[in-house]
Amino acid sequence: MPVQAIAWSPSGAVRIVDQRALPEDFATRDLESVAAVADAIRHLQVRGAPLIGIAAAMGLVVGLREDRALARAAFLAKLEGHVATLAATRPTAVNLRWALDRMLGAARDTAGDGVALWERLQTEATAIWEEDRAMCRKIGEHGLPLIPDGAKVLTHCNAGALATGGIGTALAPIYLAHEAGRKVQVFADESRPVLQGARLTAWELTHAGIPCTVIADAAAGALMRAAQVDVVLVGADRIARNGDFANKIGTYGLAVLAFHHSVPFYCCAPSSTIDASLADGDAIPIEQRSPDEVKTLAGRAIAPAEAAALNPAFDVTPARYVTGYVTDRGLVKPPFA
Amino acid sequence: MPVQAIAWSPSGAVRIVDQRALPEDFATRDLESVAAVADAIRHLQVRGAPLIGIAAAMGLVVGLREDRALARAAFLAKLEGHVATLAATRPTAVNLRWALDRMLGAARDTAGDGVALWERLQTEATAIWEEDRAMCRKIGEHGLPLIPDGAKVLTHCNAGALATGGIGTALAPIYLAHEAGRKVQVFADESRPVLQGARLTAWELTHAGIPCTVIADAAAGALMRAAQVDVVLVGADRIARNGDFANKIGTYGLAVLAFHHSVPFYCCAPSSTIDASLADGDAIPIEQRSPDEVKTLAGRAIAPAEAAALNPAFDVTPARYVTGYVTDRGLVKPPFA
Repeated sequence: MPVQAIAWSPSGAVRIVDQRALPEDFATRDLESVAAVADAIRHLQVRGAPLIGIAAAMGLVVGLREDRALARAAFLAKLEGHVATLAATRPTAVNLRWALDRMLGAARDTAGDGVALWERLQTEATAIWEEDRAMCRKIGEHGLPLIPDGAKVLTHCNAGALATGGIGTALAPIYLAHEAGRKVQVFADESRPVLQGARLTAWELTHAGIPCTVIADAAAGALMRAAQVDVVLVGADRIARNGDFANKIGTYGLAVLAFHHSVPFYCCAPSSTIDASLADGDAIPIEQRSPDEVKTLAGRAIAPAEAAALNPAFDVTPARYVTGYVTDRGLVKPPFA
Repeated sequence: MPVQAIAWSPSGAVRIVDQRALPEDFATRDLESVAAVADAIRHLQVRGAPLIGIAAAMGLVVGLREDRALARAAFLAKLEGHVATLAATRPTAVNLRWALDRMLGAARDTAGDGVALWERLQTEATAIWEEDRAMCRKIGEHGLPLIPDGAKVLTHCNAGALATGGIGTALAPIYLAHEAGRKVQVFADESRPVLQGARLTAWELTHAGIPCTVIADAAAGALMRAAQVDVVLVGADRIARNGDFANKIGTYGLAVLAFHHSVPFYCCAPSSTIDASLADGDAIPIEQRSPDEVKTLAGRAIAPAEAAALNPAFDVTPARYVTGYVTDRGLVKPPFA
C-alpha cells in the first residue's frame, strides 16, 4: 500500500509526514497554523508540486479556524494575507498558486460571513485533496500501458505518494503495474542535493513492497548505455503551454540522455500543473536554494568553506525531448489550452 | 601553490594526504607497510589513477625496507607477492598495473642481491613520481591554449594535484592559466557518491587561490544549456587504443551532454594511462564498489535499508564524444600505439 502523505488530524490540523526525517524516521507532524504550514513547505518537510498545493489549501482552513466569528470583509482580508504568505514560500510549482487561487475564488463566491466562508474553504480544500487523489489514479491508469511486465523504469526525485494526495504522478503507473501483478524494476536517481530519490522514492516504493535500486545521478548515462532503462518517468512542477516543463534539477540532463539513447521519456502530472499563461519554459521562475544544501550533508561539510556553490532547485526540459505527457486526461501532447 | 599529495617521509615511509578526511581536516599519514598502502588505496585515502601508481611503487620500497639482507631469489619472490597484493586493490586504473610492472621489470633487470635490488626500486619509484610530476606540467602546457582569459571550465571528480604526483591532469591547464594571470571560473561536479569534486577539487583549487563553484552532478545539463560552460576537462583511469576511456562514473553522461550542446570535451591524462593492449573500451574492467557508498553519507543512512543500490565507480566514454586528448606528448588523437 502506498503511504498517505497528508491528512486532517483529529483536531483539524494539517497532519503531514515529515519528509526531512525519512528514511531514518517515519514521523508525522500536526501543523496548527499558516506559519507552521509555510515553514514546513519552505523547509521541504512537505514537498512535491501537487502536495504543496493541497497542504497550502488545508493550511488556509487551519489558519482561519479561530476567525470564524469575523464578518465577511475581515475574514476575506485575513484569508488574502494567508494566501500571500503561502504563495511566497516556493516560486516554481504552479500547483501552489493554483490551489490558493481556487481557495480564494471559492471564498469570494460564497455568500455570508466567517462561518459560511470557513466551511466552504474546508469543503474546497478537501475537494482539492480528493480530486488530486483521483487524478493520481487516472495518471496511473493512463500510464499503465507504458509499464509492461519486466519493465525497467528510471525515475528522478520523488513524484510519488509523498509528493501528492494520492499514489503519485510518475510513480502512479508503477503502483498500478505492481497491483496488476507485473514485475517492475525501478531505478531511483538519488537526486542531489536534497536526495528525494534516495530518501523518499526508495522509501515509499520499498514500503509498498516494490523493489527499488538507488543510483547516483551521475550513473544514469551508463545505465542507459547498458540498455538497462526501458522508460523514464518523471513528474513536473510547472508545464508551459508549448510543453516545456520545470522539474527537479537533473531532469533536463536525463531527458537529453534519454533522447540520445532513444529511451522513451514521459512527463507525468495532473492538469493543475499546466500553466497556460506561459507560452514556453523560459518564463518559468526557477527557485535558487541555499548553497548550503550542496555544501553540507547531514551537518557535515562536504565542500570547503571557501568554495561557492550553485543550487538551482529545478531546470527546464524543452518539449522536444518529451515522448509524451501522462495526465489525468490521458496521454496528451502540447500545445495545452 | 597546488598541494603536494605524496612524499617520502623523513623515515622513508610513504607520506600521503588522507583524502577521506578532506575538506574538514588536512591530515597526512605515513604508510609503513605494503598492507597499509594497499589499505589506503582500497579505502580511497589515496586515489587518482596516476597517484595510486606512484603510491604503489613507493609502497614496494617501503615494504621491502626490512628485506634488504635477502638473497636475490628470495627478495624477488617477496617483491612479486607485494606486487600481487597491490595490483588487486583496484581494477580499473591501468597506471597501477603499469607502475607495478615497471618496478618488477626494474628489479629483474638489476644484478645483485637484496641491497642492490632495493636501491634500484627506490630510484625507480622516485623516477615514476618525478616523471609524473613532469608529465602533469606538460599536460598543463599542452592544455593551456584551451583556457583563455575568462574561461568557464567544468570538471568532474578530481583529476588534480590530489590525483597525481604533480599539478594534476585535467586541472593542470587551469593551474597554469591561473599562473599566467588568466581569470578562470571552475565548476566542479560534486561527483557522488564519494564526492571527490566537492571534497577534493574544490579544496585544492581554493587552497591554491583559484575560485571554484561546486554543483550537484545533476546540474551540469542546465549549466550547459545556459551556455555557462566553455569547455569540459576530465581525467582518465584507462584509455583504450581506439580512444575509448574509463573515468569516474558520470563522465559518460557529461560527454553526451557536452556533445549535445557543442561544448568541447577533453580527456587529460599522462601516457601511462593508455592501455594499448585493449582495442576498445568494452574490455576495460569496471570496479563495482559497495552499495553503502551510495546508501550512506557521513554515517547517516540516506536510503532505506530495504533498497538496493548500484555503485559502479567508473563508466566508459566512447572516443566519438571526445574533442581531443591532452597528454604529455601534446594534443593527440587515437588510435594510440
